[in-house]
Amino acid sequence: MSATTSPLPRTGSRPGGRSARIRAAVHRAVEELLADETGELLTIPVVAARAGVHATTVYRRWGSVGELLTDVATSRFSGDIVVPDTGSLREDLERYASDLAKDLNDPDTLPLVRATIGTAGEQGASACTRERRQQLQAILEREQARGHQTPTVERVMDAVLAPLYYRAVFTDQALTPEWARTLVSHLLPD
Amino acid sequence: MSATTSPLPRTGSRPGGRSARIRAAVHRAVEELLADETGELLTIPVVAARAGVHATTVYRRWGSVGELLTDVATSRFSGDIVVPDTGSLREDLERYASDLAKDLNDPDTLPLVRATIGTAGEQGASACTRERRQQLQAILEREQARGHQTPTVERVMDAVLAPLYYRAVFTDQALTPEWARTLVSHLLPD
Repeated sequence: MSATTSPLPRTGSRPGGRSARIRAAVHRAVEELLADETGELLTIPVVAARAGVHATTVYRRWGSVGELLTDVATSRFSGDIVVPDTGSLREDLERYASDLAKDLNDPDTLPLVRATIGTAGEQGASACTRERRQQLQAILEREQARGHQTPTVERVMDAVLAPLYYRAVFTDQALTPEWARTLVSHLLPD
Repeated sequence: MSATTSPLPRTGSRPGGRSARIRAAVHRAVEELLADETGELLTIPVVAARAGVHATTVYRRWGSVGELLTDVATSRFSGDIVVPDTGSLREDLERYASDLAKDLNDPDTLPLVRATIGTAGEQGASACTRERRQQLQAILEREQARGHQTPTVERVMDAVLAPLYYRAVFTDQALTPEWARTLVSHLLPD
């Protein structure tokens, strides 16, 4: 799938540009429908109508609502958080945790995470968090390169990542930056 | 909604028994359809057809797929875990964590959790975990009644409950009883 965005005018003879435009329109339609919270089931005909494209175009390209949501989640949750590099493991993790709390508080985030989990199962769930593990791994490796011991990435996921996602997805409790930082102080006491 | 189960034969003149039978058939249909993993969207007509009841009956009683899944999740996740009472906070939490890991490993559990989150938003998510907080609170209160200090219930949710649900819902990693118990040893070091 091309991710090119083209400023050129619509023309049937430029499949790359047309394809990118369709993708953008369909992604935007999914995001708008999720934001509407009408409770209406997200189906391919509904998405296609909102995007102004033929349902067959959407079926041909994505196959199912689950695959479409996985694609939207992958692009939404890629590169959305800048991995901090402060020279201190504790400060990196504190910033990362509070940035992620902010991201999960964004009103557009949670409906997309929930819908993707609900319709695309494991593949969808992993599209929502795939980068998180790599980002934490990068933070830990920098600390190790500075000659310091670190917890394992699994431990950081259990102690920091998991409570952020659990609180966002399963509870109505607020994800405050202060609370996010206390997760790090429990992981790295003293 | 009546939860009575009746051994009496079907008869149109027993609305309580008939109502309970419809509820059981519809709940069973939802569970079977989720287990099928056909990727087919769960809609009220699909559920009604599988349950052998009229779609209007299902609409009248539950209103939407989200409300139906919330009802199924509430009855599935109520009373499913026996709260341990060993006389020791650590042992209670270790048993609780490994019982919950086992429950989340059940092949029927995760599709129901994911579908409920996906279609019923916050209300659905809370139906999956409502009892967990109360159960942890009960374990902590018994320890306090024995004259001991305990972590807060929020802390136990962050340290024990969240990693169990995060790993189940978002990753393909195994929820082993050993790993579940290490969550408790990180919470209660020594």
